Amino acid sequence: MFAEILTIGDELLTGNTVDSNSAFIAKKLTERGYWVRRITTVGDDVEEIKTAVREALARKPEVLIISGGLGPTHDDVTMLAVAEALNRKLILCEPCLEKIKAFYEKLYREGHIDDPNLNEGRRKMSYLPEGAEPLENTEGAALGAFIEHEGVKIFVLPGMPREMKAMLEREVLSRLGKRKFIQKKFLAEITDESKLAPILKEALERFSVRIHSSPKGFGKFIGIIIFAEDEEEIERAKAFMEAKGVRFEEL
Amino acid sequence: MFAEILTIGDELLTGNTVDSNSAFIAKKLTERGYWVRRITTVGDDVEEIKTAVREALARKPEVLIISGGLGPTHDDVTMLAVAEALNRKLILCEPCLEKIKAFYEKLYREGHIDDPNLNEGRRKMSYLPEGAEPLENTEGAALGAFIEHEGVKIFVLPGMPREMKAMLEREVLSRLGKRKFIQKKFLAEITDESKLAPILKEALERFSVRIHSSPKGFGKFIGIIIFAEDEEEIERAKAFMEAKGVRFEEL
Repeated sequence: MFAEILTIGDELLTGNTVDSNSAFIAKKLTERGYWVRRITTVGDDVEEIKTAVREALARKPEVLIISGGLGPTHDDVTMLAVAEALNRKLILCEPCLEKIKAFYEKLYREGHIDDPNLNEGRRKMSYLPEGAEPLENTEGAALGAFIEHEGVKIFVLPGMPREMKAMLEREVLSRLGKRKFIQKKFLAEITDESKLAPILKEALERFSVRIHSSPKGFGKFIGIIIFAEDEEEIERAKAFMEAKGVRFEEL
Repeated sequence: MFAEILTIGDELLTGNTVDSNSAFIAKKLTERGYWVRRITTVGDDVEEIKTAVREALARKPEVLIISGGLGPTHDDVTMLAVAEALNRKLILCEPCLEKIKAFYEKLYREGHIDDPNLNEGRRKMSYLPEGAEPLENTEGAALGAFIEHEGVKIFVLPGMPREMKAMLEREVLSRLGKRKFIQKKFLAEITDESKLAPILKEALERFSVRIHSSPKGFGKFIGIIIFAEDEEEIERAKAFMEAKGVRFEEL
């Protein structure tokens, strides 16, 4: 059961913005029991996005989450690129148009903008790939999209973190089933780090857990994250490793 | 002249770590005039890394920067995966072994570790793909590697930000030539954002600049970054756009 994430934006490729969206999405998916297998970032370019979407689909993930490039400006081309990648038409979503209209009228009434009318850029946001279900944006104008395509659940979300997070929580996670994983972090101490590998391997075979390890600074400390469906299973795996000589400190 | 970045680490795919390395590397490459076309993240898995390296090479970038997975623990498999991706052997680098030995002896003398001897995990770090040039790590044990492969300059760097940054500055940028790009950020104001696209397009045709734009909040403000080889070219492009009705505020 694996997932992929695709983030879109020139600002990510020039290093002007750190891609914190990927980590947020990855954490939520991991908690739901998905293995995030790959994260890809491309720029605001129809061909680049199209290629990246097709490559991700070819790997047959259960879920593909795409974030970024849904706004009103000329370089927001994600919906068009997704539609092309799926060989679907980009079609007007009438209820979306009404929502976007209402959104800009509200901004105008509140004095944020000079003109409430739907120009080309704003109108563009009401076009979705054919067959897509619109996803509500409680924090901004751009609607998201949910598309089931050849067995892959594709979610297209905005790139602004506040909008993306709200849409992920409200509209995405509810469509991904109920199974929840929990994770606990530890600092593991072992005098010879080369002895850790066989112990981890045996724990993985004996218990329903996933374990990630990463070195923390120099020497004998290793960061360990144990994932399981319940805390008891984490404790059982931990006790097993302790009996083999690993000392844990909870983080 | 384009580049790709590949970051490696399970902690990035579970969302436990935000990948700030990519943004740091991307910024430095952009300043050198490279267009970073794609950033990919995969886990600590030989097959996943191998596949990602081969896919990146197939796109024929001038530079491929790989970061992460060079340490002594069992899940640090990047050098092996890179060697396999390039169909090269992983061979012992004798001077590297001496450096790693000296590094752990120093840690031992300073009381950071209990055992200065080179166990399997530590010894592993002195193996590089055949034909690779070792890159010095002033901040840690794991050496990097520089490999020229079928016209692509491949740099393999550690994942710990302090080590990666020092190696990038000292060992990578000096091998990438002298051309420097500068960038300036502005907030652009235009009453109808749909009018901005043709103005940007014309500026790109007339001047030796690259321009990135992204919406900032609601309404009529757009974040603009202009890249050029000198400040005068940026000023000329900006003056042209101002004459067409765009108002700039420097950020």
